[in-house]
Amino acid sequence: MNDYDYMNLAISLARSTLGQTSPNPSVCAVLVKDGRLVGTGVHLEAGTPHAEVHAIRSAGSSAKGAIMYVTLEPCSHHGKTPPCADLIIESGIEKVFVATTDPNPLVAGKGIAKLKNAGIDVEVGLCKEDALQLNETFFHFIQTNTPFVTIKAGMSLDGKIATKSGDSKWITSPESRQDVHQLRHEHDGILVGINTVLHDNPLLTTRRPRGGKNPIRIVLDTKLKMPISANVVQDTSAKTIIFTGNEIDLERKKELETLGVTVLTQDSPRIKVKEVLRTLGKLKIMSVLVEGGSEVHASFIEESAFQQIIAYIAPKIIGGKDAIPFVGGIGPELVKLGPQLHFTTVVHVGPDLKIIAKPLTEEAR
Amino acid sequence: MNDYDYMNLAISLARSTLGQTSPNPSVCAVLVKDGRLVGTGVHLEAGTPHAEVHAIRSAGSSAKGAIMYVTLEPCSHHGKTPPCADLIIESGIEKVFVATTDPNPLVAGKGIAKLKNAGIDVEVGLCKEDALQLNETFFHFIQTNTPFVTIKAGMSLDGKIATKSGDSKWITSPESRQDVHQLRHEHDGILVGINTVLHDNPLLTTRRPRGGKNPIRIVLDTKLKMPISANVVQDTSAKTIIFTGNEIDLERKKELETLGVTVLTQDSPRIKVKEVLRTLGKLKIMSVLVEGGSEVHASFIEESAFQQIIAYIAPKIIGGKDAIPFVGGIGPELVKLGPQLHFTTVVHVGPDLKIIAKPLTEEAR
Repeated sequence: MNDYDYMNLAISLARSTLGQTSPNPSVCAVLVKDGRLVGTGVHLEAGTPHAEVHAIRSAGSSAKGAIMYVTLEPCSHHGKTPPCADLIIESGIEKVFVATTDPNPLVAGKGIAKLKNAGIDVEVGLCKEDALQLNETFFHFIQTNTPFVTIKAGMSLDGKIATKSGDSKWITSPESRQDVHQLRHEHDGILVGINTVLHDNPLLTTRRPRGGKNPIRIVLDTKLKMPISANVVQDTSAKTIIFTGNEIDLERKKELETLGVTVLTQDSPRIKVKEVLRTLGKLKIMSVLVEGGSEVHASFIEESAFQQIIAYIAPKIIGGKDAIPFVGGIGPELVKLGPQLHFTTVVHVGPDLKIIAKPLTEEAR
Repeated sequence: MNDYDYMNLAISLARSTLGQTSPNPSVCAVLVKDGRLVGTGVHLEAGTPHAEVHAIRSAGSSAKGAIMYVTLEPCSHHGKTPPCADLIIESGIEKVFVATTDPNPLVAGKGIAKLKNAGIDVEVGLCKEDALQLNETFFHFIQTNTPFVTIKAGMSLDGKIATKSGDSKWITSPESRQDVHQLRHEHDGILVGINTVLHDNPLLTTRRPRGGKNPIRIVLDTKLKMPISANVVQDTSAKTIIFTGNEIDLERKKELETLGVTVLTQDSPRIKVKEVLRTLGKLKIMSVLVEGGSEVHASFIEESAFQQIIAYIAPKIIGGKDAIPFVGGIGPELVKLGPQLHFTTVVHVGPDLKIIAKPLTEEAR
């Protein structure tokens, strides 16, 4: 195994914790000495030891003279745990490969500087792209104070998410639907429009074969039509937040709040998506999975308020002028006025395709 | 190089002639002796020598004792050229690898039987799947007497082929649009609805960097609204056939016919797609590329009158309830009532994805 292999291994390990470390990033460190693995550590949950701590503890005295491969710059500040940079210096590690620096202004190069000042050989940038992708939601949140937004849809090859009568069971395969539960597990929040609740009465919980973390449920419900009997109200396995406009029945709001639901009323008759994201950011919700419907997708897309689209495309045709499209709303007059994206991932999931698309940055156009 | 490599080479060579041999299949033969290539032949155009003839001629006396790799069963009947099986026997070829038998009832195993009877060692089935795919339009036509139908569309990730105002310039990339000209070259006919003519006034000709064959233009025009000034009428670089219902202006029909356009009037007010295909089959049009619009796609899909869909998906979102979807029409009430397909090819073409989907056969469901 070479440097690339060890860092790659660290990134794979870190990836397996996506969804369980928020509001911290997913991080892994591995220690190698004389060609042997002598320690590994993964950050498991916010408030518990960082990856470097676990790795150094597991190595014991072997840490002295070892090489560390760590997926993110070690911290240099006292947070809920002492600075990892100090521990690395004390342990006698000789060389540290850092995949990427930490954009967190509390760290931002200071961890690396501290290591270098202590005479440790530091190389930054090995597997950088993968490490950035690994924690893209964290990096986005740290830099914008708003959640990373993923719009997810299961659709037919002709871009429909339901027939004209609203039937959508099932467009995508069991394999794709299972993959969506992984996405739910990885996201802090899951967001739908009230029409999805009224039509499908979903639980919006995570069902993975070995268990999983439920995201916080977020419903956009301008007029507060949420039925008291809805699963997202009655089921207590996850918190539910409802955003409304300012023309609502206050009695119903009280009734929902009594049942443990948070109702956040905006200062306008219509819900402003960007305002929703700012509020969620204040609540430390770092990532939101938008799961429909058509009009909710349109409101995020029209505001350019998304960081990626994950489309599961099934090998089916629905057809029909009145079938429900992936993206509703008004739509632009000209093609060039719509969002321009690029495909970052295309993989087969069972019989379906999973396509990840991200907005083109201005410089890439 | 092994047997597989030689047959693969033959299939690649044959593929380069797609579009130029109709109503014959694309065929290549290569001859190998003592580990050296001693002859190659490709069928270039209907009415000219078959691949085997060119290969044997190019080999000269080296054909004696050679191995032939041929992508399709050699013919055994007198058509426009003498039977290839006889020539192979006369030439002294020792062994023949045949990728696939010929479904043409005039050949259908008789060519192979003739070779075997003459004492030649024949192996059938090397690279069979690729050879079947190579001539899928020919095989379909021979077995059904109707053209192989490819529905082609360039669309956004949300399944739109134009904005609500009809703008579609350009959804897909220059690379995808160039790829479409290859498809036009490969098909005998190109079919659109009258609305596409009225809206875009297309030429429907083939523009490839080194030239190409124009498909016959076919327009579905129920009420015969075709303007005399339309490019598909005025441009004489390809033939144009218009299908109409039986409630049309006969004066206009005459006028169009005077300009060289063929107008075929069906026996009903609405055009029947399957009837169109039967008529095209009688005209020896083996393959048709359906290029829109939305309602024409729907009419072929609702009748299950297609063999493949080629979707170029651009990394763009159009959005809007009133944007033009890939497939219009009425559409089914339930997802399970729409066509069930499978993805056979997914490739990147420039920034776009090219997805080929074919109907699931009953046994594959």
